[in-house]
Amino acid sequence: MKAIRLHAYGQQPRLDEVPEPQPAGPDEVVVRIGGAGLCRTDLHIMDGWFAGTIPSELPLVLGHENAGWVHAVGPAVGHLAIGDPVICHPNLTCGVCGACKAGDDMRCVRGPRLPGLTRAGGMAEFLTTNERAIVKLGAGTEPAGLAALADGGLSAYHAVRKAVSALEPGSSAVAVGAGGLGHIGIQCLKAMTPAQVIAVDTSEDALKLALDCGADQVVSADGQQAQRVRDLTGGGADAVFDFVGEDTTIGDAVAMLRPAGTYYLVGYGGTVTLPTLPLVLGEISVVGNLIGTSTDLAGLVTLAGQGKVTLHSTRYPLEAAGDAIDDLRRGRIHGRAILVPS
Amino acid sequence: MKAIRLHAYGQQPRLDEVPEPQPAGPDEVVVRIGGAGLCRTDLHIMDGWFAGTIPSELPLVLGHENAGWVHAVGPAVGHLAIGDPVICHPNLTCGVCGACKAGDDMRCVRGPRLPGLTRAGGMAEFLTTNERAIVKLGAGTEPAGLAALADGGLSAYHAVRKAVSALEPGSSAVAVGAGGLGHIGIQCLKAMTPAQVIAVDTSEDALKLALDCGADQVVSADGQQAQRVRDLTGGGADAVFDFVGEDTTIGDAVAMLRPAGTYYLVGYGGTVTLPTLPLVLGEISVVGNLIGTSTDLAGLVTLAGQGKVTLHSTRYPLEAAGDAIDDLRRGRIHGRAILVPS
Amino acid sequence: MKAIRLHAYGQQPRLDEVPEPQPAGPDEVVVRIGGAGLCRTDLHIMDGWFAGTIPSELPLVLGHENAGWVHAVGPAVGHLAIGDPVICHPNLTCGVCGACKAGDDMRCVRGPRLPGLTRAGGMAEFLTTNERAIVKLGAGTEPAGLAALADGGLSAYHAVRKAVSALEPGSSAVAVGAGGLGHIGIQCLKAMTPAQVIAVDTSEDALKLALDCGADQVVSADGQQAQRVRDLTGGGADAVFDFVGEDTTIGDAVAMLRPAGTYYLVGYGGTVTLPTLPLVLGEISVVGNLIGTSTDLAGLVTLAGQGKVTLHSTRYPLEAAGDAIDDLRRGRIHGRAILVPS
Amino acid sequence: MKAIRLHAYGQQPRLDEVPEPQPAGPDEVVVRIGGAGLCRTDLHIMDGWFAGTIPSELPLVLGHENAGWVHAVGPAVGHLAIGDPVICHPNLTCGVCGACKAGDDMRCVRGPRLPGLTRAGGMAEFLTTNERAIVKLGAGTEPAGLAALADGGLSAYHAVRKAVSALEPGSSAVAVGAGGLGHIGIQCLKAMTPAQVIAVDTSEDALKLALDCGADQVVSADGQQAQRVRDLTGGGADAVFDFVGEDTTIGDAVAMLRPAGTYYLVGYGGTVTLPTLPLVLGEISVVGNLIGTSTDLAGLVTLAGQGKVTLHSTRYPLEAAGDAIDDLRRGRIHGRAILVPS
Repeated sequence: MKAIRLHAYGQQPRLDEVPEPQPAGPDEVVVRIGGAGLCRTDLHIMDGWFAGTIPSELPLVLGHENAGWVHAVGPAVGHLAIGDPVICHPNLTCGVCGACKAGDDMRCVRGPRLPGLTRAGGMAEFLTTNERAIVKLGAGTEPAGLAALADGGLSAYHAVRKAVSALEPGSSAVAVGAGGLGHIGIQCLKAMTPAQVIAVDTSEDALKLALDCGADQVVSADGQQAQRVRDLTGGGADAVFDFVGEDTTIGDAVAMLRPAGTYYLVGYGGTVTLPTLPLVLGEISVVGNLIGTSTDLAGLVTLAGQGKVTLHSTRYPLEAAGDAIDDLRRGRIHGRAILVPS
Repeated sequence: MKAIRLHAYGQQPRLDEVPEPQPAGPDEVVVRIGGAGLCRTDLHIMDGWFAGTIPSELPLVLGHENAGWVHAVGPAVGHLAIGDPVICHPNLTCGVCGACKAGDDMRCVRGPRLPGLTRAGGMAEFLTTNERAIVKLGAGTEPAGLAALADGGLSAYHAVRKAVSALEPGSSAVAVGAGGLGHIGIQCLKAMTPAQVIAVDTSEDALKLALDCGADQVVSADGQQAQRVRDLTGGGADAVFDFVGEDTTIGDAVAMLRPAGTYYLVGYGGTVTLPTLPLVLGEISVVGNLIGTSTDLAGLVTLAGQGKVTLHSTRYPLEAAGDAIDDLRRGRIHGRAILVPS
Repeated sequence: MKAIRLHAYGQQPRLDEVPEPQPAGPDEVVVRIGGAGLCRTDLHIMDGWFAGTIPSELPLVLGHENAGWVHAVGPAVGHLAIGDPVICHPNLTCGVCGACKAGDDMRCVRGPRLPGLTRAGGMAEFLTTNERAIVKLGAGTEPAGLAALADGGLSAYHAVRKAVSALEPGSSAVAVGAGGLGHIGIQCLKAMTPAQVIAVDTSEDALKLALDCGADQVVSADGQQAQRVRDLTGGGADAVFDFVGEDTTIGDAVAMLRPAGTYYLVGYGGTVTLPTLPLVLGEISVVGNLIGTSTDLAGLVTLAGQGKVTLHSTRYPLEAAGDAIDDLRRGRIHGRAILVPS
Repeated sequence: MKAIRLHAYGQQPRLDEVPEPQPAGPDEVVVRIGGAGLCRTDLHIMDGWFAGTIPSELPLVLGHENAGWVHAVGPAVGHLAIGDPVICHPNLTCGVCGACKAGDDMRCVRGPRLPGLTRAGGMAEFLTTNERAIVKLGAGTEPAGLAALADGGLSAYHAVRKAVSALEPGSSAVAVGAGGLGHIGIQCLKAMTPAQVIAVDTSEDALKLALDCGADQVVSADGQQAQRVRDLTGGGADAVFDFVGEDTTIGDAVAMLRPAGTYYLVGYGGTVTLPTLPLVLGEISVVGNLIGTSTDLAGLVTLAGQGKVTLHSTRYPLEAAGDAIDDLRRGRIHGRAILVPS
């Protein structure tokens, strides 16, 4: 089958012909890929950011945001039928360790087992995963339209869900960055909370997308954005979701908070630097977020099925992965790029 | 092997010779039984209470509170070694459905699969269960000493854990019934909360056991118990745990609550009858409790390993199951009866 | 001034001329009434239901759902200006006891101090309350349009808010009764949760109102309503809010729940009767609800100000209180009746 | 009366003779001081750290940890009698704003009104505060023994209480610093949670105090402390409470956490610097803490009354404030210094 493989850090991945996978273990599932999302984390993987902490064996088939149809299953798989449309949680979990039993999928002791990072991913015609990583889609759903919910969307949902109990009527929430993650985060906030939602971005197109996604207000990141948010919210927001997480956003994002507010870090790349005196006087919390659970993914897929969350995406043939990567690097993609096998 | 089997509702179960089980599925585990607890639910099973809702196929090997050592495992079992001391969660779960992924073991869509009720239990030399139902004990632990934590203790722990966030300094909690469940509940309350703990029972021996277990005060159930509790707590307790749940305890237990208090129902047998006017004016909650999760069981086993929870039990040889049943029916057991294969 | 006073239980209240109130204490506030809601609790008060538990001194000015404008203030009042549009929380709280400091307004140790029940209410031209009971409305708001949020709406909001953390994507919630409380409850559910909302009522007009309020589905209470809800929800709802609470609704409402679901009792009048076996096996919770906090009222008023909650009401001149009472008793009011001083 | 006043930043405060305060407002209370705690924040005040954010008018009577007896009350005070032993919450709150109604005392819109910082404090014979800032002590309590619970102890309690729901059986918590705050934090952890508690300090005396306070294990801060904690906890603690908050502790403290753990910052002085990649991959939270609520203070006083929390302190006559300040600066005080008027 065709697959997009990374052969060396710092190089563009290549379209290769590789053997089609078979289910090897009793709980394994082969998914025929309908679409695989391309996200900033793929750029970080290609650039070798994870080489130290989560090593990959090269060549590596990329693709950690995968959706498609069940193609083959191992003998112990009991909840799936061939042809079911499905989306794949980005971590394969054992189901037996303490973390798995508590529903804390990202801390499975057998992991991380991450397609597209520690094993072959979904920028290919087929992907092998396991039954616990599968979330079924509604009958007739087109998987390509939802693929990017599997990681980027899931990360946004997971962070928003942590904030639900704090976002009461009269509260406000800010989405810093209205791109691939942010536009899903805005929709999750509107679907799950009564908070006033403000989107902040440097791009006018992104702010337009934010309004289409239901943002109550948008603020251009022109240098005055923290003050603008404090004015709009009467002293600061209850929650700020940083979907960028670069040095350019972190300080401003924290400055948008009201006392006792929480800064949710979803994107990554920079450094959080906070003197303890204002952190204590403001009683501020900083909350890191790592993807999400399988239960979160099922919740997000439900919102999508109810029409409350829509993924804005641009499709590329699998063969054009290189073009998609270039477009992402140059900021030319709105919403999310999806690679679709022909 | 020897097994205690129920052949007909309303009859005493019999000691039978039956075939030794083998692991049939890839995730199955055969446990050599160290001890099996006998609890009031066994009497309810024998008396046919569950025949309508959760039917059993007779003859049935009884025993749903099981602990022992790993004897044999299926090929997909990855976390266990032969000889590991273990305790068995009372429900076999699939690990793949939405409830399992969220850690809600009692709502597994493949269930209920309950040894001692819907399949062969642990009043025998060996028991078959699956890997997800196994919680490991510390090396060198004697399983018989903990067997009754598997269901009765777990039910008490599960209810107490729901109350933890409401039981702040200055709060008070009542254990109605200081027997098999109650004496564990009292210890869990002392280990996990700063609440003042009051035990209520008709038996002086049970009240002595309650004091040994750390109860701050004991109240004899002499008809004035609700008023006594209101006096001791300055107007009512924040939480009342009813480990009996019969018509004789329910009304009094609810009358022990302060406004906005919660009544946790763990034992069962009677009927809750509450006029809506006092329920609303008092803003009272009534919370049913069904056993607990595997995560709960791991937590309880940890408390036991730390010496914070000790099971008070009386051991009987497996062959003397009939005597144990008679003693339980006649109220002659303090703490818990444990059946031990010879 | 004119006031509607109850002179004897079981009799229709009368329009009387009484002295206009003055602020007596340093924190007292006199409100010029814009509107006072009439609710089923007023019928219960007239009928003497509370005579035993919360005694009133007769004659009593009725009216516990009050909104208007600040007319006069005591010397210690610091947050209000004459003419501010306001709504009145139904309990006067001291602000100093442990319950008040924790935000638990209904358990103030100085209370209950309830206008319209333990002291003069707002079916009059003026009402005396205290500063802590006042929630400001947005400038230019017409108070009569919101008066019934003060108790009925608040009770619905308070119950819904308890359920927010349990009502995740994919969950479902049922409003039993789509009248004065229910139509607010439905809007609160839609504003604060992603749950599918189902309304159940005997009246076709009420079901139409429910759809106008955003209910996703409506079910006629024709005897098959519990089964209909179980079918629509795939096995039962996560939360059922009983805004009626009579014997005719309670059993059916509980039967609409899925395992581990919660029954929120808001209306009252009947008796909850639940055998412990299904309560435990279903792990069902029953949660009583008593009005709500001042913080809740501020939240609800915010939702109204944002257009997310709209009160459907019918206005009567204060002098026509008797007609309004008759119409309420005969089920001829949709939404809420509001008495407006001329 | 005698009072310790700061006349200029950077100078030692002086013992002055000043007029005795009278209750001026209706809700004001004059407290005869039994004892006033001296804490590191007093040093920060003297050194001018707060001059920019929370300005003081000099000369300023220091003392923000105050306990004593009710000496005089304004006319609206209803819950207190002359002679009642009391402890003073460090912020005077209005009781009427949204934050106060929600129990969020540190965010009162009328504040901050902090004795010892924005108004005359309790290093004197008498202090004026208001009724809402008063928490009653049990009859016969000696206030000097509890004074330091008012701020330092309260800050520790407040942070621990945030962690209660996450600290389940089997979890572990670390107290970095076992001095004035830390030794209270350790006792709160033992009283309110089943967590294993590890104390880390550079001082052997402090570690001895930690063991006396119930710490399960102690670790000397010799440079290897983060690794030692990870070893003792099998991979990191669930919660780390940093009662120091200087650059010397912050990095190590964060390195003691397990994945998904939380770092509670209570002490302050340094800067938190965290690259986003490990913060996200570890899903770490950083939680700032500002003193606590009046409800928290009542909870802490209850624990003290039950003997679960004991303050270790060294008393100095009020006149010897200078000696106490010198001893604190030089690290010669174990537990807490308390100034007692003669």
